[in-house]
Amino acid sequence: MNFHLNEALEILERTPQTLERFLSGLSEGWLHSNEGEGTWNPLEVVEHLVEAEKHNWIPRMESILAEGENNPFPVFDRYAHLKGTSERTIEEALSEFHTLRMANISKLRAVVNPHDLEKTGLHPEFGVVKLRELLSAWVVHDFTHMAQMVRVMAERYRADVGPWSAYLGILKRS
Amino acid sequence: MNFHLNEALEILERTPQTLERFLSGLSEGWLHSNEGEGTWNPLEVVEHLVEAEKHNWIPRMESILAEGENNPFPVFDRYAHLKGTSERTIEEALSEFHTLRMANISKLRAVVNPHDLEKTGLHPEFGVVKLRELLSAWVVHDFTHMAQMVRVMAERYRADVGPWSAYLGILKRS
Repeated sequence: MNFHLNEALEILERTPQTLERFLSGLSEGWLHSNEGEGTWNPLEVVEHLVEAEKHNWIPRMESILAEGENNPFPVFDRYAHLKGTSERTIEEALSEFHTLRMANISKLRAVVNPHDLEKTGLHPEFGVVKLRELLSAWVVHDFTHMAQMVRVMAERYRADVGPWSAYLGILKRS
Repeated sequence: MNFHLNEALEILERTPQTLERFLSGLSEGWLHSNEGEGTWNPLEVVEHLVEAEKHNWIPRMESILAEGENNPFPVFDRYAHLKGTSERTIEEALSEFHTLRMANISKLRAVVNPHDLEKTGLHPEFGVVKLRELLSAWVVHDFTHMAQMVRVMAERYRADVGPWSAYLGILKRS
């Protein structure tokens, strides 16, 4: 296992600023690019990250510490961010994400010690999971959605790059 | 075609700062993670971006504008960054990348007009290519290597995430 709490926090605390640098002020063409019907654009990905800060990682961490395996985690709706009635700007979404993430890191630092990492809880689908697995997944979830954003943005230029598509791995369809 | 020069520049000018926010100050464990023998870690990816700023995009742009299809592009060695004898810090590499990128954007702005985008040059492997294709590829090359960095970093936690690997697309092996 490679997980170390301080190294995980290095990533978690960088993601909001990284996304602000990358996405703030971008043209609508980039922010609304997606990979077709039913896929998310970069703004929708940020809104999903906001939902996960509110309803996923911290409630589950608290469930492990307070409930252990006695009760399953509260439900997290991965599509909740698509149900909003009005769309806000990317800057507004990034700002909320930043605020929530920093507050969540503070909560984590306040309650988690390295010897808690093997504590367990009950995932509604996976069954018994460890706090270490949850916190590792939080980090890799950031990576997954950063990769998704650049992939959907690259999609815009699939035709434009001409023969270079052969060398640009991000354009390979999986 | 979706390429617009100003939108392409939005991405090109953001990449150095985005990578600085993401990578500066990270632990060695992250900066030296890779996907096994012969694969690049995040520091090596930044060094490759530095080489491409020096020897790939701008020399090829200049070749299109000056030579057209009369002479093939100068050669670019995609592995040049692996030949250095001493390794420097990520901050040093990022700083050089930032400086080179900003200078290259200035060069591009000084010589390229929108009506130049269909001008052609001779790629040693692809044959005739357009300036639009080269500039699109420059943008998607940034995206490709950002996706590569988060993918190799996610690889570190492949075992740590436990059952969450099913939901974390970045861990799918292609």
